[in-house]
Amino acid sequence: MRILLSNDDGVHAPGLQTLAKALRKRAEIDVVAPDRDRSGASNSLTLTRPLRALVLDNGDVRVDGTPTDCVHLAITGLLENEPDMVISGINSGANMGDDVLYSGTVAAAMEGRFLGLPAMAVSLAMTQEGRHFETAAQIVLELLDRLSRIPLPSDTILNINVPDLPRDQIKGYQATRLGHRHRAEPVTRSADPRGLPIYWVGPAGEEQDAGLGTDFYAVRHGYVSITPIQVDLTRYEAIDVVSRWLTEESE
Amino acid sequence: MRILLSNDDGVHAPGLQTLAKALRKRAEIDVVAPDRDRSGASNSLTLTRPLRALVLDNGDVRVDGTPTDCVHLAITGLLENEPDMVISGINSGANMGDDVLYSGTVAAAMEGRFLGLPAMAVSLAMTQEGRHFETAAQIVLELLDRLSRIPLPSDTILNINVPDLPRDQIKGYQATRLGHRHRAEPVTRSADPRGLPIYWVGPAGEEQDAGLGTDFYAVRHGYVSITPIQVDLTRYEAIDVVSRWLTEESE
Amino acid sequence: MRILLSNDDGVHAPGLQTLAKALRKRAEIDVVAPDRDRSGASNSLTLTRPLRALVLDNGDVRVDGTPTDCVHLAITGLLENEPDMVISGINSGANMGDDVLYSGTVAAAMEGRFLGLPAMAVSLAMTQEGRHFETAAQIVLELLDRLSRIPLPSDTILNINVPDLPRDQIKGYQATRLGHRHRAEPVTRSADPRGLPIYWVGPAGEEQDAGLGTDFYAVRHGYVSITPIQVDLTRYEAIDVVSRWLTEESE
Amino acid sequence: MRILLSNDDGVHAPGLQTLAKALRKRAEIDVVAPDRDRSGASNSLTLTRPLRALVLDNGDVRVDGTPTDCVHLAITGLLENEPDMVISGINSGANMGDDVLYSGTVAAAMEGRFLGLPAMAVSLAMTQEGRHFETAAQIVLELLDRLSRIPLPSDTILNINVPDLPRDQIKGYQATRLGHRHRAEPVTRSADPRGLPIYWVGPAGEEQDAGLGTDFYAVRHGYVSITPIQVDLTRYEAIDVVSRWLTEESE
Repeated sequence: MRILLSNDDGVHAPGLQTLAKALRKRAEIDVVAPDRDRSGASNSLTLTRPLRALVLDNGDVRVDGTPTDCVHLAITGLLENEPDMVISGINSGANMGDDVLYSGTVAAAMEGRFLGLPAMAVSLAMTQEGRHFETAAQIVLELLDRLSRIPLPSDTILNINVPDLPRDQIKGYQATRLGHRHRAEPVTRSADPRGLPIYWVGPAGEEQDAGLGTDFYAVRHGYVSITPIQVDLTRYEAIDVVSRWLTEESE
Repeated sequence: MRILLSNDDGVHAPGLQTLAKALRKRAEIDVVAPDRDRSGASNSLTLTRPLRALVLDNGDVRVDGTPTDCVHLAITGLLENEPDMVISGINSGANMGDDVLYSGTVAAAMEGRFLGLPAMAVSLAMTQEGRHFETAAQIVLELLDRLSRIPLPSDTILNINVPDLPRDQIKGYQATRLGHRHRAEPVTRSADPRGLPIYWVGPAGEEQDAGLGTDFYAVRHGYVSITPIQVDLTRYEAIDVVSRWLTEESE
Repeated sequence: MRILLSNDDGVHAPGLQTLAKALRKRAEIDVVAPDRDRSGASNSLTLTRPLRALVLDNGDVRVDGTPTDCVHLAITGLLENEPDMVISGINSGANMGDDVLYSGTVAAAMEGRFLGLPAMAVSLAMTQEGRHFETAAQIVLELLDRLSRIPLPSDTILNINVPDLPRDQIKGYQATRLGHRHRAEPVTRSADPRGLPIYWVGPAGEEQDAGLGTDFYAVRHGYVSITPIQVDLTRYEAIDVVSRWLTEESE
Repeated sequence: MRILLSNDDGVHAPGLQTLAKALRKRAEIDVVAPDRDRSGASNSLTLTRPLRALVLDNGDVRVDGTPTDCVHLAITGLLENEPDMVISGINSGANMGDDVLYSGTVAAAMEGRFLGLPAMAVSLAMTQEGRHFETAAQIVLELLDRLSRIPLPSDTILNINVPDLPRDQIKGYQATRLGHRHRAEPVTRSADPRGLPIYWVGPAGEEQDAGLGTDFYAVRHGYVSITPIQVDLTRYEAIDVVSRWLTEESE
């Protein structure tokens, strides 16, 4: 099996390197990842300039683009051998609820949707400094094991959030839906040293929908959260609503 | 009514300016848009540096960030009055099928999901130079009219693609689902003038699922395509599959 | 006469537009300038990616690069007709003393060193909001007049700083040398909203050498300061010192 | 002695790492260098956004800014102990003649002008892949030795270009002036895969002034070229010319 490994924290991030080391025992690993932190990159794709790919001494490939660029390049011609699946991570920090929309980690996994095996985005849900990247790497190995015995449809994309705990304190796995947050905190206005106004995007909002069944709930209770993700943004159940709305005549 | 107008082509783009002009007859308009072309930005949010917002002579606000940054800033504190809805566009070029995943235009509309009225992303589906921005602006006015008479749930996000035709050649509206494309074309390898290798992201793949009911189909046949979009990326129908997969024991 | 006009504040900056308007009465003007604020860009040249040049409605050309990129592109093939000289500005803020080393305004003028007439960098030495861009534009016209009557060597580069005063309060012109500053103020350490450390480059140091004959002195006393600038960075008077140092034997 | 080491090829570049290793035997070394290739950055200083400095596992500091940013930050507060001198390099490629104006390597050395010992910019003048970074590192050690025995004024900035040869094939040292080039080659026009026009900055012009006494000449004949560099851009010998020009009356 060949696995393409990417992330959004950059090729040198400890989460990715820990995972690469663990996976190398099990599969052929190609690392193609951004040259720097690209958190918040979502599915952005670089169309206005060319990309550069540098092969590092250890064979990892560093790209001056987004996580999506990395996976896109890797599977459309950069790599000699096409991988069977993409794994993205281990992200330094959770990717749950509405935040998934902005996540470069999850986006990298989504870009692997055309390959032969399910894609995985893996995040370590930590508060301060992440300590248990090893746990998350172990979880990935367990899931790969399972996958080799019991297949999943190839277009499956799994968003995996692992509590920042030693492996033996993890209570198990839960299949979850994404929770939801309240609206983000207000923008932080301040001034640069020259007195000009600057604006920092505020922190994400408080959890609003974080009950049983959500990723927030699973992780808070010590479970690995596994959420199936879709790439088709159509809101199918609303098509009829819109259709009626378009034809209906108000009295 | 107050409408926040943004886009991903940049604040000076003719599509946005045409729409702003048309909307000003109907509502209070705030324009907050990127300082340059940000096509392909998806939902990316700038977390690593502060943003700057410059009020131009005509009152439009230019932000050195992504479309998502623009709407996020506008509704979390930049604007004095909170808008009732976000409209994003008129994009120069279609945003249909899988491309929606990468679209900054659609992302800007998604970021308006917390406001009081449905959000709209509007694109002119043209091949070469767009000619009929006026048509797309007219379509938006018609939809706003309808919305004022017949409401839609406030969390609705509509992705609107308008054929590049005079208004009287448009055959009508269709509520659609997103079509799908084959995998993207291979990356374009070439070299810069110094002989170093560079890689351009290749063009989108050919249409694969473009039949009746899709946005591709509607636009190709002269209809305005209106696709309801979701921001919850959970693939609900797969939660049970994953749940069984996690617990099932292989023999 | 054809004049190429550029700057480092961006193509839409009022300083550039004021100067363009004034110069159009006297010469053919081509504007090629950055798409955004590029203050502090020095002579940086973009080698790692291609540049894009967009012709705006009024004929000005907007480039997604540095001031040096703009002038370089303009005179190496972008423009149909080669200009006779480059004028850069009117910069919003002084470019004097050591600051010149970092100035994109002065760098743009330096890049015009291969043309047929002297190059000029023009800055309005203001404290708060610049008020008298008209004065600076008037000064440029006066200098062009003089140049048409009394030539200067074509490789001359003039760094012009104009006090922010009405024209009739300007006392005259002074040919000056660059003054010097003390070392820059310490870096400003702070934290972003996520608690991560950030560093802002501190303000320039206090004036150290600002006496009679310097640009600082001239402007402070109400004179237009005109400093001839060199592009050859060799410190000629030190070549012999280094030569002796290389051969000398210590006892 | 404490030496601050920087470059413009990025903190991971082999030239910098080779030099760091060699210097560590002789002095306390702090490495503060850009996170990626910043060739062509000249003296550009980042004023519009804050910088981030990441301490790598080996103690090197990686900054998301220009070479000038790196040195500026390091000596205005980032480092606990102020260095005695700055060395920049070993650059992968020569920095000679007019090219020095655009060089980030030389700019980093210039930014060390306020420290207690002379600053050095070191470049390996190679055509293809650089082979003899070891030679250049050896040359730096020899110059430091000499400097410890025979001092130079603290404001001296030396631009050092080393032929890409084994140390025993280097013929010696020459104190040189910068040579000059003809105007740059025309811009390379082409199109991106979407058919939109792009422009690459063309290669530097042919050598025009490359005779005896220039850096071009020294390196071509197998000598290490050492050019003293100035940071005061005043063209002193032209002040009187400009002064007369300003007062002279044409008949």
